[in-house]
Amino acid sequence: MDVKAAGSVAQDQFSKHAGRRKVIIDTDPGIDDMMAILMAFQAPEIEVIGLTTIFGNVNTDLATINALHLCEMAGHPEIPVAEGPSEPLKRVKPRIAYFEHGSDGLGETYQAKPNFQKLSKDAADFLIENVTEFPGEVTVVGLGPLTNLALAIQKDSNFAKNVGQLVVLGGSFNASGNVNPAAEANLFGDPEAADIVFTSGMNTLAIGIDLTTQVIFNEDDLCEIRDSGGDYGKYIYDCCRFYHDWHLSSDHLDGIFLHDPTCMAALLDPTLFTFKNGAVRVETEGPCLGHTILGMGLKNWVKETSWTGVPPIDVAITVDADGVRNLVKKLLCSSRLK
Amino acid sequence: MDVKAAGSVAQDQFSKHAGRRKVIIDTDPGIDDMMAILMAFQAPEIEVIGLTTIFGNVNTDLATINALHLCEMAGHPEIPVAEGPSEPLKRVKPRIAYFEHGSDGLGETYQAKPNFQKLSKDAADFLIENVTEFPGEVTVVGLGPLTNLALAIQKDSNFAKNVGQLVVLGGSFNASGNVNPAAEANLFGDPEAADIVFTSGMNTLAIGIDLTTQVIFNEDDLCEIRDSGGDYGKYIYDCCRFYHDWHLSSDHLDGIFLHDPTCMAALLDPTLFTFKNGAVRVETEGPCLGHTILGMGLKNWVKETSWTGVPPIDVAITVDADGVRNLVKKLLCSSRLK
Repeated sequence: MDVKAAGSVAQDQFSKHAGRRKVIIDTDPGIDDMMAILMAFQAPEIEVIGLTTIFGNVNTDLATINALHLCEMAGHPEIPVAEGPSEPLKRVKPRIAYFEHGSDGLGETYQAKPNFQKLSKDAADFLIENVTEFPGEVTVVGLGPLTNLALAIQKDSNFAKNVGQLVVLGGSFNASGNVNPAAEANLFGDPEAADIVFTSGMNTLAIGIDLTTQVIFNEDDLCEIRDSGGDYGKYIYDCCRFYHDWHLSSDHLDGIFLHDPTCMAALLDPTLFTFKNGAVRVETEGPCLGHTILGMGLKNWVKETSWTGVPPIDVAITVDADGVRNLVKKLLCSSRLK
Repeated sequence: MDVKAAGSVAQDQFSKHAGRRKVIIDTDPGIDDMMAILMAFQAPEIEVIGLTTIFGNVNTDLATINALHLCEMAGHPEIPVAEGPSEPLKRVKPRIAYFEHGSDGLGETYQAKPNFQKLSKDAADFLIENVTEFPGEVTVVGLGPLTNLALAIQKDSNFAKNVGQLVVLGGSFNASGNVNPAAEANLFGDPEAADIVFTSGMNTLAIGIDLTTQVIFNEDDLCEIRDSGGDYGKYIYDCCRFYHDWHLSSDHLDGIFLHDPTCMAALLDPTLFTFKNGAVRVETEGPCLGHTILGMGLKNWVKETSWTGVPPIDVAITVDADGVRNLVKKLLCSSRLK
C-alpha cells in the first residue's frame, strides 16, 4: 500500500487556487458530511485547504479514516487531514450516532481503507497554523461538535479573530432539538466547546436544524443524483440508503434532512438565507444541556443577563429550501473525479 | 376600622353560585393581575372562591394587601385571601418587578389599605383544602411564580390530581423571555416550583408570553375602558399609566401587553387559542434558568430524555389576539361594583 502523508503534495496544488476562498472543513463524516464535502470539492469558488476531524456521527478515529477516504476518492489526496481529540472538553464519553450513519459512518457501505494518512499535528494546531498564516482569509465550516475550534481558541488568543468566518451547522433556534426536545446533536456533543466558540467573537454564521429540517431530499431526488451521470451519483445514493431508513424510523420522514449540505450551501450562497444578529449562549447544565438561545436585543433588560456583552453572531432564521435543494443537487449531480 | 377575616362571610355568598366553575386565583398583583382579577369578578360563568398570593410583581406581603384591596373594592369582601411564602423554594431572594408595576404594585396609584384581613391558613393549605373538598372541580389560575402550587404538591400527594385544571401564565415557548432571552418572569421567579408543577400530572394549560405579547392594549383601548362607564374604568386607566410607561422604555411598545388578562381569557374562552399537548420541562440551572421546553413527541428519541415519562400538559401555541382583546375589554368596560 502506497502510504503518503496527506498534505505532502499540497503546495503545488494550492498555487493553482489563487483567488478562491480558503476553506477548512471540521467534520465527523457521517453521511451528510460526505455530501457537504463532495459539494465543496465541486464548488469552483472555494479551495478546501484541509479537513479536521472530530467525533460525532462516528468516533474520531473513524472520522479521520472517512475524511481521508473522501479526499482520496474525490481525487484530492493533497488535502491534509488533521485529527481532533476523541472526547469532548469536559464530558468523558462522546455521543456517537452510529444508529444514524451506520457502523462505518457511511451507511454501512464499507468503503476501501484510504491509502493516505492523517497529519501528525492535531486538528487545533492545524487550524491555528492556517488561520495565522492567512489571517481573515480562512473560512471554517463546522459540521460536527465544536471541540477543535474551542481548543484552538484556548490555545491561541488570536485564533478567534484570525478566522475569516465560521459557518457552522449547530443548534436549533426556537425549535425542537434532534437529540432531545432541547438540543441539537452537534452542540449537545460538546456544549462547553460550543459556548466557548459562540461567545468568542469569531465571525460566525450558525445554521440550526430548525432550518435544515426544512431542506429534504426524497427518494426521487436521490434517484436523480444516482442517475445523473455524476461520478459519485451511485456512491451517494448507496450511502443514503441507511440514512433514509433511519429518518423513516426516527422522524417518520420518507426522505433525508440535508443538515450539513445546507450548511455548505450557506457558505456558497448566503442569499438563500436570511439572518438575525445577536448573542448566542449554549446551555451547559440541566435538561436544556446543549440548548441554544439567541438574544436579539428586542428588549431593554432590567439587569445584566448571560447574554450581556457577548459578541453577536449571525443566525440563519429563514431558508429558501428549494434554492438550497437545487444548489446541493446541482453540485452533487455534476460531481467529477479530478 | 372594621377588620374582619376575609372569608368569614363566604358561605352565604357561595350558595348563590351553584353551577358556576370554582376558581382560585394564585396571584402577585400587579397591574395585569388586577385586570385579570376584575375580569374574573365580571365573568358570570365562574365563581372566585379564593385568592392565594405570592411574590413576583410585588413582594408577598404587598401581594396580599393588593389582593384584599381588589376584593374589597370590587364588593367581594367575602372572598378569602390566603398568603404564600415570601421566597421561592430554593432561591433566597425573590425577584420583584417594582420597576414594572410601581412601588405599590398598582402603578403608584397608592390605593387605600383594605379593611379585611388575610386568612390565618397559608396559601398551600388553602389550595389543598379546597381541591380536597371539591376534587376535580376547582380551577386554579396561576398568575405568578408557582411556589404555592409546588408546596401544595409536596404537602399532599393527591393535590395534583384533585385540581380540576390549572390555567397558568408562564413560560415562553420557542420565543424570547422577558427577564432575559431565555426566561419568562413567572417561571424564572421560582423555576424549581414550575418544574414540579409542570411535571406533576396536574391537568394544566400553559399560556406563554410568546402569545400574550401578541395581545396589546394601546392608549385608545385604555381610554375606551376609562370612558366606558364601567365602575373601574378610571381605576384601570390610572393604574396602567406606570405600566404603559414601562412598556415604552422596556419594550419600545406604545401600549401594554395583556399577560394575565390573556391567561384569564384562556380560562373563559379556550376557543380563542389552539394548543399542543406535550411534556414540559423547566430549566433550573445555567444561563437558561427558567426556560421552558415543550417536547411534542415529533421524533423517536434514541435514548430516554428528560421529557420521557413526564405527563403531558396543554400549551397554547396560537391566539386569536383580537378575540382576546375584545373579551378583556368587554369584561373590563362592563365592570360593576357588587
